[in-house]
Amino acid sequence: MSTADPKPNDGKRPSGCPVTFALDTFGDRWTLLIIREMMFHGRRTYGEFLEADEAISTNILANRLKQLEFDGIIAKRRDPDNFRSFIYELEPKGWDLAPILLEIIQWSGKYDTRPGRLMHMVERVKNERQALEQEIEDRAIALRKTDDSE
Amino acid sequence: MSTADPKPNDGKRPSGCPVTFALDTFGDRWTLLIIREMMFHGRRTYGEFLEADEAISTNILANRLKQLEFDGIIAKRRDPDNFRSFIYELEPKGWDLAPILLEIIQWSGKYDTRPGRLMHMVERVKNERQALEQEIEDRAIALRKTDDSE
Repeated sequence: MSTADPKPNDGKRPSGCPVTFALDTFGDRWTLLIIREMMFHGRRTYGEFLEADEAISTNILANRLKQLEFDGIIAKRRDPDNFRSFIYELEPKGWDLAPILLEIIQWSGKYDTRPGRLMHMVERVKNERQALEQEIEDRAIALRKTDDSE
Repeated sequence: MSTADPKPNDGKRPSGCPVTFALDTFGDRWTLLIIREMMFHGRRTYGEFLEADEAISTNILANRLKQLEFDGIIAKRRDPDNFRSFIYELEPKGWDLAPILLEIIQWSGKYDTRPGRLMHMVERVKNERQALEQEIEDRAIALRKTDDSE
């Protein structure tokens, strides 16, 4: 898959189904992991994404960031503190994925019984979901303000 | 990918993350489409799944059904009306994916602007979500009763 054509053509037949639309946009495992890093861990640079636990490869990361930008889920801009670097931030279309991610975390909290499972986000979704939603909302608003002031 | 090894080994590194767990279980496009067919359209036989709009291939369908059964999301049993056939039904672990699917549909309803998009489920999630959730719940309970009476 070349980076010039980030959307893989794997013989998918288009259907008007909303579930298909969503999966085609963010259903890729690495795509959702990048969104997770931005939404819950505040990561926003190429280097920070590479530090995620799942050890994403540089070519997959570059490909998925390009696709996410193309799809309007994230925006790429120059880092004001280091003009040679870029930062990536969620757009409203990306922040609106929060309820899906929270439901996914809740489901996993119920069914994931692996010994090494991470319980931090599961506990937060379970015990303080409203506060967590507010936190995500606040982060989204703060980012919009930063953008406006530039 | 052989049917004897339904879980693809594509160099994924295990992480304890609940999002990763969920994606590894149902994040595959075809997997979620099969769940959609069962949950919203009441399809439950091999032949019925093949009729879905997206034209799933027989080998992918067989592979994904096997994996879903292995993961405890669906159960396979003999069709009482035709003992040579099988029917597939969601298990509680599968029904519990409903909130995720509803959030996905809602998000797509907001951002899918393709001319051929299907609005039926989007409208239902938007205008009668509670009734839809009740309907899914009722269908899950009805299935459990059928299982108990056999």
